[in-house]
Amino acid sequence: MPEPCAQQSGPPRVIIIGGGFAGLSAALALNGSGARILLLDKENHHCFQPLLHQVATAALAASDVAWPIRYVMRGRADVTVLMLAVDGVDAARKVVKTHRGEIPYDFLVIATGAAHSYFGHENWAKAAPGLKSIDDATLIRRRPLLAFEQAEASGDEEERARLLTFVIVGGGPTGVELTGAIAELARGALPPEFRRANPRAARILLLEAGPRILSTFPEQLSDYARRALQRMGVEVRTGLAVEEVYEKKVVAGGKDIPAGAILWAAGVRASPAADWLGVPGDRAGRIAVGPELTAPELPDVYVAGDQALVIGADGKPVPALAASAKQMGWYAGRAIRRRLRGQKPRKPLHYRDHGNLATIGRKSAIVKLGRLELTGFVGWLFWSVAQVYFLINLRSRLFVAISWIAAYFTYHRGSRLITR
Amino acid sequence: MPEPCAQQSGPPRVIIIGGGFAGLSAALALNGSGARILLLDKENHHCFQPLLHQVATAALAASDVAWPIRYVMRGRADVTVLMLAVDGVDAARKVVKTHRGEIPYDFLVIATGAAHSYFGHENWAKAAPGLKSIDDATLIRRRPLLAFEQAEASGDEEERARLLTFVIVGGGPTGVELTGAIAELARGALPPEFRRANPRAARILLLEAGPRILSTFPEQLSDYARRALQRMGVEVRTGLAVEEVYEKKVVAGGKDIPAGAILWAAGVRASPAADWLGVPGDRAGRIAVGPELTAPELPDVYVAGDQALVIGADGKPVPALAASAKQMGWYAGRAIRRRLRGQKPRKPLHYRDHGNLATIGRKSAIVKLGRLELTGFVGWLFWSVAQVYFLINLRSRLFVAISWIAAYFTYHRGSRLITR
Repeated sequence: MPEPCAQQSGPPRVIIIGGGFAGLSAALALNGSGARILLLDKENHHCFQPLLHQVATAALAASDVAWPIRYVMRGRADVTVLMLAVDGVDAARKVVKTHRGEIPYDFLVIATGAAHSYFGHENWAKAAPGLKSIDDATLIRRRPLLAFEQAEASGDEEERARLLTFVIVGGGPTGVELTGAIAELARGALPPEFRRANPRAARILLLEAGPRILSTFPEQLSDYARRALQRMGVEVRTGLAVEEVYEKKVVAGGKDIPAGAILWAAGVRASPAADWLGVPGDRAGRIAVGPELTAPELPDVYVAGDQALVIGADGKPVPALAASAKQMGWYAGRAIRRRLRGQKPRKPLHYRDHGNLATIGRKSAIVKLGRLELTGFVGWLFWSVAQVYFLINLRSRLFVAISWIAAYFTYHRGSRLITR
Repeated sequence: MPEPCAQQSGPPRVIIIGGGFAGLSAALALNGSGARILLLDKENHHCFQPLLHQVATAALAASDVAWPIRYVMRGRADVTVLMLAVDGVDAARKVVKTHRGEIPYDFLVIATGAAHSYFGHENWAKAAPGLKSIDDATLIRRRPLLAFEQAEASGDEEERARLLTFVIVGGGPTGVELTGAIAELARGALPPEFRRANPRAARILLLEAGPRILSTFPEQLSDYARRALQRMGVEVRTGLAVEEVYEKKVVAGGKDIPAGAILWAAGVRASPAADWLGVPGDRAGRIAVGPELTAPELPDVYVAGDQALVIGADGKPVPALAASAKQMGWYAGRAIRRRLRGQKPRKPLHYRDHGNLATIGRKSAIVKLGRLELTGFVGWLFWSVAQVYFLINLRSRLFVAISWIAAYFTYHRGSRLITR
């Protein structure tokens, strides 16, 4: 296996799997640890997932919300970044398995995150793409745009009505954000550009199997979001589970809904890391870890981010948010650093709730932050500032800010390109 | 076939095939003609081809150099834009054929442009992608970036040397621009980010079958470009034709050149429009037209842009540049407008030479403009201003300018994402 990781002597070796919020934070927290750090990811870039829906709906370009991982780590001579998929872990022998061979570690951080899940209907993926990566966002962007184009070219009324029906499955933050953005595209940016199809007449359905959308928010905020979407002309259908997904229709409540684009935002599932370690995963594939974040009976293996199921001080699971992934990754990195320095173990993770936000459209968002609840334009402003602030890269902060200001005033979607 | 084009009465119908510089200019020139204009393109976007190499080498994002065609035409109620591929033309019956049926025209503008050509070796396309569209640029960007990533992950010296060898085939402006940009990436932006592979040691070869690179420029400018590339560590090999292209090597001069990425910039070929019309095309597939730009014996069919072979007043073919495509498209549009208004025919096209520019790197370009010749940084500044100025969209002008300024000072390539 490749140098310099194969050597059996020298500085301790830490392998971090995953360059998301948790993995990057772990690498940052290991600064000055004296370890040789290997950061593995199957992609070459870190993706700012909370803004992915903006790429998916053509408000931002992919490069506004993603950065090469090795660029982020360029100042850290102790970190080697490899674009390399992990096939498994042999925790007994303390090696990570890849197609280029095995790589030994002293400490391992598993921060492999989650992908969307079709609850056993993986064949739905092609008809109803989900949103977890830059590639997904590019694919999701293509679908509604292509449907509008085809509606304009079609001479058949029935076909046009189908093409102008958009179904979003899943009423969590991603589903609500996608729905709001598509509604804005249809009602705002597109109408002046079409001559035959009428984007304003597009039918936009948000389907949620549970009793209400945005169920992780307080009820009055989720009511607000529902009304805001309805004002934008969205049909919000709760308590309605999807039974089947085809290329051109969704079946729900026993009825066919012919559609021009179907987007999936209904479920996530953690990576197969539980299988790698031979430890039990929960229903969503997460590994249950204590507040020290180490895997069951594997004290040198830390689990962080969406991959980890941790119970917070309030007895509830720490939510799967960017902010919690960052805290967990930082905790794991610092815990390893303490052990490498021979310091006494770190105190257990104390999760700090930085609030929860979801955007509904260009001018509306809901924010829950401790006892503070914001809605509407004030919420949206708060959300915008928070998002831009948390972007890790100064250049991108500037670009995102300019993009949004430009989009806000012009409705122009500069990224509205259909590519393959 | 779709409304409203199928109707047999009403205003005259003009169909423009192609939303490039020529097609868009024709549509703009037809403003106020009273015709119903149908603008067809197989893509939904206009692409600013002179900057495509900047997307291909990760300096700009795709959305910086492309715009939805219907966005450009949003203020023109007389123009219907359809994303629709053309299968053929029946010039006798005056209809355009598409998979959605036939569409009748009174006047036709063929502005279908050119694609890259492998001179009969179309099987080389997969190993050595060429650069004509946004999709191509995304693909070309992926190749060298992936090679650098694989070199970093490889433990094998020989494999790493192959992966860090880049072969660019064709010494025209596109080939030179790609070569210069890859050399800058390898020598400038990447080294601080790699720990095991050394991007500075990358071997970059520019192969040209003819006696010199940039053969459409005066000899001293092409000498300058050669020396500038050599100073950047590029091996420029002229008089060397490629005999075979494989996935991992190029054969030239009887010798194997193992390579990590192979890019094609050696030839272009016009679209099959000559076959559609049943008129002869030249070796590159272009339709020879007189200075009135009408196809042979088809006075209602205009040909403009890279698709047209026109002899200028100086006895030389009008070059295949964005500026000439714009002039031809405008000419065709105005000529049709005059005929629709019953005015006397337009004077033949008088091509105005706006000069010729090619960039070699971040700080170097060559410019030939009448008797003016510029090189080096002055040439680059001139080139930059000219490119930004000619971008059609104010927002993008600003973005491109900021991107360049940011890239110039930071070497940071924000778009350096590997996506599928």
